[in-house]
Amino acid sequence: MLKKIVLTGAAGALGSALREPLSRMCERLVSVDLKGAPAALAANETWTVADCAEMEQVAPVLEDADIVVHFVGIPDERPFEELLRPNFLSSYVIWEAAHRAGCRRIVYASSVHAVGMHETNAGIDTDAPHRPDTFYGLSKCFAEDLARLYWEKRGLEAVCLRIFSATEQPQTPRALGTWLSRGDLVHMVERAVDTPTTGFCVVYGVSNNDRAPVSNAKVAFLGYRPKDNAEVFAQDILAKAHTPDPQNLAQMRLGGPFATVPLGESGVAGMAKLVKGS
Amino acid sequence: MLKKIVLTGAAGALGSALREPLSRMCERLVSVDLKGAPAALAANETWTVADCAEMEQVAPVLEDADIVVHFVGIPDERPFEELLRPNFLSSYVIWEAAHRAGCRRIVYASSVHAVGMHETNAGIDTDAPHRPDTFYGLSKCFAEDLARLYWEKRGLEAVCLRIFSATEQPQTPRALGTWLSRGDLVHMVERAVDTPTTGFCVVYGVSNNDRAPVSNAKVAFLGYRPKDNAEVFAQDILAKAHTPDPQNLAQMRLGGPFATVPLGESGVAGMAKLVKGS
Amino acid sequence: MLKKIVLTGAAGALGSALREPLSRMCERLVSVDLKGAPAALAANETWTVADCAEMEQVAPVLEDADIVVHFVGIPDERPFEELLRPNFLSSYVIWEAAHRAGCRRIVYASSVHAVGMHETNAGIDTDAPHRPDTFYGLSKCFAEDLARLYWEKRGLEAVCLRIFSATEQPQTPRALGTWLSRGDLVHMVERAVDTPTTGFCVVYGVSNNDRAPVSNAKVAFLGYRPKDNAEVFAQDILAKAHTPDPQNLAQMRLGGPFATVPLGESGVAGMAKLVKGS
Amino acid sequence: MLKKIVLTGAAGALGSALREPLSRMCERLVSVDLKGAPAALAANETWTVADCAEMEQVAPVLEDADIVVHFVGIPDERPFEELLRPNFLSSYVIWEAAHRAGCRRIVYASSVHAVGMHETNAGIDTDAPHRPDTFYGLSKCFAEDLARLYWEKRGLEAVCLRIFSATEQPQTPRALGTWLSRGDLVHMVERAVDTPTTGFCVVYGVSNNDRAPVSNAKVAFLGYRPKDNAEVFAQDILAKAHTPDPQNLAQMRLGGPFATVPLGESGVAGMAKLVKGS
Amino acid sequence: MLKKIVLTGAAGALGSALREPLSRMCERLVSVDLKGAPAALAANETWTVADCAEMEQVAPVLEDADIVVHFVGIPDERPFEELLRPNFLSSYVIWEAAHRAGCRRIVYASSVHAVGMHETNAGIDTDAPHRPDTFYGLSKCFAEDLARLYWEKRGLEAVCLRIFSATEQPQTPRALGTWLSRGDLVHMVERAVDTPTTGFCVVYGVSNNDRAPVSNAKVAFLGYRPKDNAEVFAQDILAKAHTPDPQNLAQMRLGGPFATVPLGESGVAGMAKLVKGS
Amino acid sequence: MLKKIVLTGAAGALGSALREPLSRMCERLVSVDLKGAPAALAANETWTVADCAEMEQVAPVLEDADIVVHFVGIPDERPFEELLRPNFLSSYVIWEAAHRAGCRRIVYASSVHAVGMHETNAGIDTDAPHRPDTFYGLSKCFAEDLARLYWEKRGLEAVCLRIFSATEQPQTPRALGTWLSRGDLVHMVERAVDTPTTGFCVVYGVSNNDRAPVSNAKVAFLGYRPKDNAEVFAQDILAKAHTPDPQNLAQMRLGGPFATVPLGESGVAGMAKLVKGS
Repeated sequence: MLKKIVLTGAAGALGSALREPLSRMCERLVSVDLKGAPAALAANETWTVADCAEMEQVAPVLEDADIVVHFVGIPDERPFEELLRPNFLSSYVIWEAAHRAGCRRIVYASSVHAVGMHETNAGIDTDAPHRPDTFYGLSKCFAEDLARLYWEKRGLEAVCLRIFSATEQPQTPRALGTWLSRGDLVHMVERAVDTPTTGFCVVYGVSNNDRAPVSNAKVAFLGYRPKDNAEVFAQDILAKAHTPDPQNLAQMRLGGPFATVPLGESGVAGMAKLVKGS
Repeated sequence: MLKKIVLTGAAGALGSALREPLSRMCERLVSVDLKGAPAALAANETWTVADCAEMEQVAPVLEDADIVVHFVGIPDERPFEELLRPNFLSSYVIWEAAHRAGCRRIVYASSVHAVGMHETNAGIDTDAPHRPDTFYGLSKCFAEDLARLYWEKRGLEAVCLRIFSATEQPQTPRALGTWLSRGDLVHMVERAVDTPTTGFCVVYGVSNNDRAPVSNAKVAFLGYRPKDNAEVFAQDILAKAHTPDPQNLAQMRLGGPFATVPLGESGVAGMAKLVKGS
Repeated sequence: MLKKIVLTGAAGALGSALREPLSRMCERLVSVDLKGAPAALAANETWTVADCAEMEQVAPVLEDADIVVHFVGIPDERPFEELLRPNFLSSYVIWEAAHRAGCRRIVYASSVHAVGMHETNAGIDTDAPHRPDTFYGLSKCFAEDLARLYWEKRGLEAVCLRIFSATEQPQTPRALGTWLSRGDLVHMVERAVDTPTTGFCVVYGVSNNDRAPVSNAKVAFLGYRPKDNAEVFAQDILAKAHTPDPQNLAQMRLGGPFATVPLGESGVAGMAKLVKGS
Repeated sequence: MLKKIVLTGAAGALGSALREPLSRMCERLVSVDLKGAPAALAANETWTVADCAEMEQVAPVLEDADIVVHFVGIPDERPFEELLRPNFLSSYVIWEAAHRAGCRRIVYASSVHAVGMHETNAGIDTDAPHRPDTFYGLSKCFAEDLARLYWEKRGLEAVCLRIFSATEQPQTPRALGTWLSRGDLVHMVERAVDTPTTGFCVVYGVSNNDRAPVSNAKVAFLGYRPKDNAEVFAQDILAKAHTPDPQNLAQMRLGGPFATVPLGESGVAGMAKLVKGS
Repeated sequence: MLKKIVLTGAAGALGSALREPLSRMCERLVSVDLKGAPAALAANETWTVADCAEMEQVAPVLEDADIVVHFVGIPDERPFEELLRPNFLSSYVIWEAAHRAGCRRIVYASSVHAVGMHETNAGIDTDAPHRPDTFYGLSKCFAEDLARLYWEKRGLEAVCLRIFSATEQPQTPRALGTWLSRGDLVHMVERAVDTPTTGFCVVYGVSNNDRAPVSNAKVAFLGYRPKDNAEVFAQDILAKAHTPDPQNLAQMRLGGPFATVPLGESGVAGMAKLVKGS
Repeated sequence: MLKKIVLTGAAGALGSALREPLSRMCERLVSVDLKGAPAALAANETWTVADCAEMEQVAPVLEDADIVVHFVGIPDERPFEELLRPNFLSSYVIWEAAHRAGCRRIVYASSVHAVGMHETNAGIDTDAPHRPDTFYGLSKCFAEDLARLYWEKRGLEAVCLRIFSATEQPQTPRALGTWLSRGDLVHMVERAVDTPTTGFCVVYGVSNNDRAPVSNAKVAFLGYRPKDNAEVFAQDILAKAHTPDPQNLAQMRLGGPFATVPLGESGVAGMAKLVKGS
């Protein structure tokens, strides 16, 4: 059993879902966030308020950690300047601090938006080149390249999870392919943690959807075998879907609305509009 | 729900099997064939006798259609001159008429014979180049290239179904890999119709056979997940199979007997002979 | 030395340039065209007026021929119906007649427009899939697939020359990359004829331009080593070039103006407009 | 039903497991080994003591055989000189004798160690180049190339099974990915025998493990669909696993301990040490 | 002729070499650097002192510019914090300012160090994935991904020059392959500027060295045809070369000494040591 | 300058041509062959009679050698048993002895026949898989895999030269593509020796022939740039060439006559017959 796991972004929508499962995989779980602690903690969980872009705040937290599960960051498109600290610099600080602390691995919340400009019908796998759709996606490209650098130069492992649509339920036609259920997210993180050695690798975070548009064949060694399938929601979603428009990149690229949102403007808002059918 | 679907070749073996399922996916189904209407039609189905190689006959039928499911054509090898109208020209007419009518997509009955000269043991996927085995296969290559042209120049979508052995039951050792059950054919056409946007793509029409020799990994976004498996027939078929002969291209290429049939002569007859064990 | 070569389209711009060089490679050159004979013929040249889409007219011409150099066809975009006979059917007739006559090889004037929708900056090679930009390009795709079929089923060899901009001089910025000089055209045809065995293959017809956008590395065995370089015209051409516009596919795809011309309308006229700077 | 199958290495750990299943696939099974016959034979089984590196001993055994299942060989790393006869020369003798006897196919016990230096996280498929990790692996490369030669020059088919960890149960973290259960081994051999035509091909011998690191997608035509999954042992194995060390090639390459064992020294002993946690 | 080119980093070693050639390609050249103007300027050259990481300083400079040649940045490895402004943020500011100013293209001084961890003997081309060898290389990866983002979302073109060893003369065995002469650097920048449309692309900046380890085949459309060849220095360099050591990544990876330099420490110093033979 | 080079097969046709050039690259050249010394030796050359398949004879010769240029072996097809010692075992002995002696690199005379079954018109590069055409070719596959093993496990470098038609002059149509002049052979060996570090790599030994069918693009780092061109012999050779026959694998595969010669029979004799036009 692992001695210590650090989870950053522990108060976020996804981070919250990971606290309990991670707490069962180690002797001590340290949850980190800018926000304060929630009402209930796991028995072996400690909560630390820290800004992950600040080395002095991060360094002590990572001492003796085996693995960092790095989920901090604004989960949406913003002007570059607003993403600089929380998404870009925090990644640098986490990797550098993890190296100094002798951590073994970082499990990173990357995103489909690192490759969001690829055609949905191209069937890319984990070898596809970076094609970010937003500054947000660019921050994920940056962290993935950083991860590869630390692995190749310093032997710090990294599993980059290119998370797709991690919502409670799929809500759009796109999500019939891109949905990542909570259960499968947890399963993916567990495998990213418990696989004995990983080196540097990238894995797509999608559920076992009939319409999942990407392939994890080249990282099968991780043993990520999702169970949920958005198809059970297909009839409802397709019945009330927006008009199909193949000239609209938001419907043709992996990034969905992020592929067309102006740089710096919220893509999540664009997604929300789609859900409402507008 | 779609307003109108047009099904061509509605009286054919495969077209017949698609009428009922398609009628449930739209307000109006228009079935087209050179032959007259069958005894029973679906409640929302209209039957039109028309020659799909004639623009004047096709144009009025496609008015207001959302999607054309194009299954017209002689399903066998013939002299080029005999295939010219029903297989080559009808495809041109359908695409051109669909464009003029503002249709959104054509679902096309392509065939394994567009790539029939590929080695069965090569494990090709949907990116493999055209290697037709017959004039029949050549007509499918022509229509696929036409489909890509209309997509790239005019935005008309196309899903090309490379149908393998769409028989009631598998009957030859080859069919243990290449069988496409009626149920899976219907499922494939449903997905080709209900996927909101597809652009131009190609998908192999094989069931979930243990021995299916090709991969649909690159068009996973379509959500085609076949259910049937020819393996349940394996023991019977292998027990009475012809002598294996790896020097016989009919046993080594995806096209089966079409890979060796002289150009212009019936490949289906060749298949029938195989079934009888001769 | 070859006994007999048949050259179709002998009165065309490119065909005319090939008569003399081909006449030196064989005992008898038979030049074929819909037009009548020019004033002067080579000593061993015969001129035949024939419609290559008519088997009865073609069959006697091909008797005892070793190699057919097939350059017939309208060299521009037209409505499909207008291209059907001269570009599609003539190819079928030539291949079928060549097979019946026991010819060894067809050297075919294919075109960049068979792959004209590929990005110029993608650096494709001869393995790139068909992406026609026009009905004209589609007719080239058809003939290439036909050629492969006759090779694989009947052992008739084919060298498909994907000719780019075969003009006296390069005239547009695009032609700095795509120019094929007369000398290099002749050299390419000579190699396509004198290479002892070729099977089926495709070669790009571009000169040794600094900016040639495609690679013939995979058909190096043909020994096509062009000598001319459009770069000597670069200064003049770039000085008076149209405004660069990377949003204009005519400037970004291999097919140039054919990539944007409406299907059925002349692409050559579009090129001419470009030359005039409009 | 096949007339005669010859199984070499019949007294070995894997050979023993194949006798009964193979006996059900043919009229006569001839089991061959250097060791004498076991107590019980199948009804249609004959046992022959022979040295497979000696043509005079092998030739009579292979008379009239349809298929040879060639499992002879030292299943571990040894000095080259010790492997020369049992692993290298025996393969030559078997192939040559099979050719002379007119056999149709050889099913060969190749090994992961033919590609053991590939990174586990690279997700290779059956097209990956040879990267042997030991002399043992080199003997498998030799036999695979020999197999391809006999197929291409003499039409003798071969199915090369790259067997991974064929133990009763998985015992190491590596085996969570590489385990091949007895049941799946038998199933794989059955398919390698009953597939009517195979030409030359290579298939990975791994069970349906969640963490199986390689892909058989390109030989799907064989119909090898393993059933067992090492994941049921994961909790136990991971609980007592050795310390992960990504700088240790034994944990990062497909060959496992063979990737680091000195050439000529037992890799199985290295594996055993791992199991004990040392 | 171009109206206005902006050259950043104009006082640097490479920037200085580009001022005169660029001044001949446009009506106005604006040279930018943190340092003050040199003694002599070209007739149509203006010098601006500005910090490229500051939008307010950059924005006015880029007004009405057609093309920005962006060579600003520390040309060596440094701690991440020291590279953040000059190498990372300046790139963001330049791209954003160029977009706001309506510039057409950015020609960017990227570096081999974006892919410096690739094996020298792997023969990679311009499609190889990012494998940075340093924070310096990471800053180039960042800018390349940024460039692709601005191209795909905003239509701003970019030519990323992966410059290798741009010294007066090659000085190490590695440089026999990686040398980029001043003349070829200028030629490469000229082509990156004068090519009418480029979209987003990457080109390797190496001379026509016999031993150039990478391929520009996929960006041949740019017409970059280097003339100089480090081989004329080979005899001298090899005579006094350090001891070959294939276990030393500095001798086996494209990045040379950067592949082994500790992150944050000067790689140029490492190169200098090599030159001295230590 | 290198201290000591050992050249095996020094009395052979190719070995003889290498003695003088190699003697200039080192302080001591030791030439080894089963045959006795020629009349004249280079000033720094020693001649040793030894059987390279015997460790006791080889070991003392390799002491203190930096590089072994291994050209021993029967240069033709023979029964496997006849090739076993001179071609297979000698390679093992040389690699093992070189390892024990601490040599840095082996330059090996591999052959096109390791990949001789590939189609000539496929344009393969150095990544193509092994497809031997003879036992002779199989011995080259064996040594290449052995070379890779010693590199990956023991750090012994290897440059495998896949020599094509190394004759004084090209004599057949095939040789117009496959000729390797003496001058280019020497140049290739010089580069294989003087390149500071090589790891394991493969390079095709063909001259700068117009019709050279394979690509060395992926090993450009070696700096092998051949000068001679068989095309100067083309007119003569083609004038008296045998009848082209694309159904004859000897004319369609890289291995030429070796592709059709029965296993174990001389392919050189087959080539000689071709030269005589029979």
